[in-house]
Amino acid sequence: MTTTPIPPSTTAQSVVSLMDSIADVGRDTARGGYSRPVYSTPELDLRSWFVEAAERRGLEVETDRNGILWAWWDVPGHDRTDAVVTGSHLDSVPGGGAYDGPLGVASSLAAVDVLQQRGFAPSRPIAIAVFPEEEGSRFGVACLGSRLFTGAITPAKALNLRDAEGSTFADVLRANGQDPAAVGVDRAGLERIGLFLELHVEQGRGLVDLDAPVGVASSILGHGRWRLSVSGQGNHAGTTLMADRRDPMVAAARAVVAVRDIALLHESARATVGRLTPVPGGTNVIASRVDFWLDVRHPDDAVTAAVVEQIHAAARAVAAEEGCTVDLVEESLSATVHFDTAVATGLSAATGGSPLLPTGAGHDAGVLSAHVPTGMLFVRNPTGVSHSPEELCEDADARTGAVALADTLAVHAG
Amino acid sequence: MTTTPIPPSTTAQSVVSLMDSIADVGRDTARGGYSRPVYSTPELDLRSWFVEAAERRGLEVETDRNGILWAWWDVPGHDRTDAVVTGSHLDSVPGGGAYDGPLGVASSLAAVDVLQQRGFAPSRPIAIAVFPEEEGSRFGVACLGSRLFTGAITPAKALNLRDAEGSTFADVLRANGQDPAAVGVDRAGLERIGLFLELHVEQGRGLVDLDAPVGVASSILGHGRWRLSVSGQGNHAGTTLMADRRDPMVAAARAVVAVRDIALLHESARATVGRLTPVPGGTNVIASRVDFWLDVRHPDDAVTAAVVEQIHAAARAVAAEEGCTVDLVEESLSATVHFDTAVATGLSAATGGSPLLPTGAGHDAGVLSAHVPTGMLFVRNPTGVSHSPEELCEDADARTGAVALADTLAVHAG
Repeated sequence: MTTTPIPPSTTAQSVVSLMDSIADVGRDTARGGYSRPVYSTPELDLRSWFVEAAERRGLEVETDRNGILWAWWDVPGHDRTDAVVTGSHLDSVPGGGAYDGPLGVASSLAAVDVLQQRGFAPSRPIAIAVFPEEEGSRFGVACLGSRLFTGAITPAKALNLRDAEGSTFADVLRANGQDPAAVGVDRAGLERIGLFLELHVEQGRGLVDLDAPVGVASSILGHGRWRLSVSGQGNHAGTTLMADRRDPMVAAARAVVAVRDIALLHESARATVGRLTPVPGGTNVIASRVDFWLDVRHPDDAVTAAVVEQIHAAARAVAAEEGCTVDLVEESLSATVHFDTAVATGLSAATGGSPLLPTGAGHDAGVLSAHVPTGMLFVRNPTGVSHSPEELCEDADARTGAVALADTLAVHAG
Repeated sequence: MTTTPIPPSTTAQSVVSLMDSIADVGRDTARGGYSRPVYSTPELDLRSWFVEAAERRGLEVETDRNGILWAWWDVPGHDRTDAVVTGSHLDSVPGGGAYDGPLGVASSLAAVDVLQQRGFAPSRPIAIAVFPEEEGSRFGVACLGSRLFTGAITPAKALNLRDAEGSTFADVLRANGQDPAAVGVDRAGLERIGLFLELHVEQGRGLVDLDAPVGVASSILGHGRWRLSVSGQGNHAGTTLMADRRDPMVAAARAVVAVRDIALLHESARATVGRLTPVPGGTNVIASRVDFWLDVRHPDDAVTAAVVEQIHAAARAVAAEEGCTVDLVEESLSATVHFDTAVATGLSAATGGSPLLPTGAGHDAGVLSAHVPTGMLFVRNPTGVSHSPEELCEDADARTGAVALADTLAVHAG
């Protein structure tokens, strides 16, 4: 079934060599780490790498109408239904780490190696899925591929999203040979999935503190993104007296401080401004507008809503004091996800009693969990840092994770 | 001497038609107004436009080794020394107005039209100069062309400046057929200038309040630019507890508020943050670093220095409170310029008693004034707004300005 040499053992060494083989794709010398936005050259290179790696393992690869890649390990006499699907994403945040996304894809391929080496014959189809724009770093909506696939976002809204260069998602799909008219909910595609499992590098210190290489997700914090635009009066930085200014940068700065102060008032809340753009953005120019993006998360969706409302009120108040106005637009909102308990318990058992733990990070698995039984495996990150070049995964833990995934696939597809 | 029809009158109508002819060059549909950074396609188009317009008027155009364009109205039997030189710049801030720079260039051409129509025969050479990167919007240092020309910046420092794409000034010069090794102080060039006059749209409300179409500059506020980099710990916006953060965006926001608060403590001080860049800049990413640029101006250079020091101290304090660090780098500094009193008085007399007024905006004339007798004419801006699409100049005032410039050239070159 495979044209490459069979791995020497079931230690899933291939996850390390697979990760090594993409270590130079999309490096960001300015920010550090990797920048692999969806449909950029590096992300397209990673897709080609995946297709080749999957085909080398005898899997049949297809790209569906939402741009999701599927690599199938078919079962003779069994159509592509009730499949055990695993996978993750290949896109990254700007200046992100090496593991967020690709580790899940490489581990899926390595798990296939382990099963093939064991001579495993699945009784249900196994597939590896690669979802586009999980990070939302190009078009602003995280998990865009899985949201379209499940109908969690309408095609009209998705197609009109714009990247920083002003290109719409529709433009970019077209430029990449995808038909914008074809995107949207894919009920037949959903029906092919019997179970979805995503392996992901952990994005906090949970497994470090538990001294465990692998864990199982219990829940995903509810989270959303909002864009705030503060408008004032653009003018010359030298000729405009301080007293005559309506400077949206000052108003936005006060609002950014309020974001942090309000989050601290609510236990377990996280509120972040990581992206901010003054317009026009000249050193000797008082900005006419400042756009910034707000990321808010809390286990209780009502608290998330309250935090956003308090931030909006605070932003309106400081904007008014600075002679400015503020607009708030919700870009995405995901309720807290509690993963299927039976799946989670089974994953823990299949991986030698891995601990269950919650996560603050969103995932395609969270989007899919509303439609199909879904579980997640986390692999320890010794730095606890993510969305940063400092994100890390030790080789030994990566191999343990890939074997755990293989064991899990074997339990469900055996 | 000219191949085009002689203008019908001395009302300098051509300044309006010249401005009309470039009204579509470098429009910025995203920001509004114009974005014409130095050596961009729009700025190069404007240079070509200038060369053609000057040559059509019988002027001989040369590009010097610092990329400054010179269009000469030579005097038979007189070499190019002791010339009366006028001009301005064609580059813009991002999303700037139509008049800042180009009005001075178009008025210089229109003044030549007026003088040629009058049959004026100069006894000293007249030249029009166009200086590159007056705004510093691409490489961060304002008046880069005139600073190199006068030796106010070293070639080594200038050549290593980088634009937002990471290209050095040397790279960009080379790509535009200029020799980086040739830039730097041009004593022979300076010796050709007997008097320098720059006409510029006013960038405040001085002439509106005085009800005068044209005014004469008495001084330019001292000003400088500093880059502050706040470093913290990049991390995931969802998985990192508020208490565990070292978020440089919060520290930078508090520093931006301090900039304004400190400026308000010093009468006549202006301090502005118009440009700010989080790194890496993802919505779901706590930034690892935030860079922002500070523009400070005051008539008393000691106060400018004190304001910057107080801002630096405040930024260090808030950064420390947020678990971050801050670096401050001076990018440019220009002392307050008091223009030559005899030139200013003469300009006022030659233009029918135009009022004298100070300005908060920097200009190439300010850089040249340390080396040659220099004066400036301002033309009324009814909005008082500049570095913004709302910057304005009425046609009648533009014509009055061009005639005033022609009259002044006639006085000095007659």
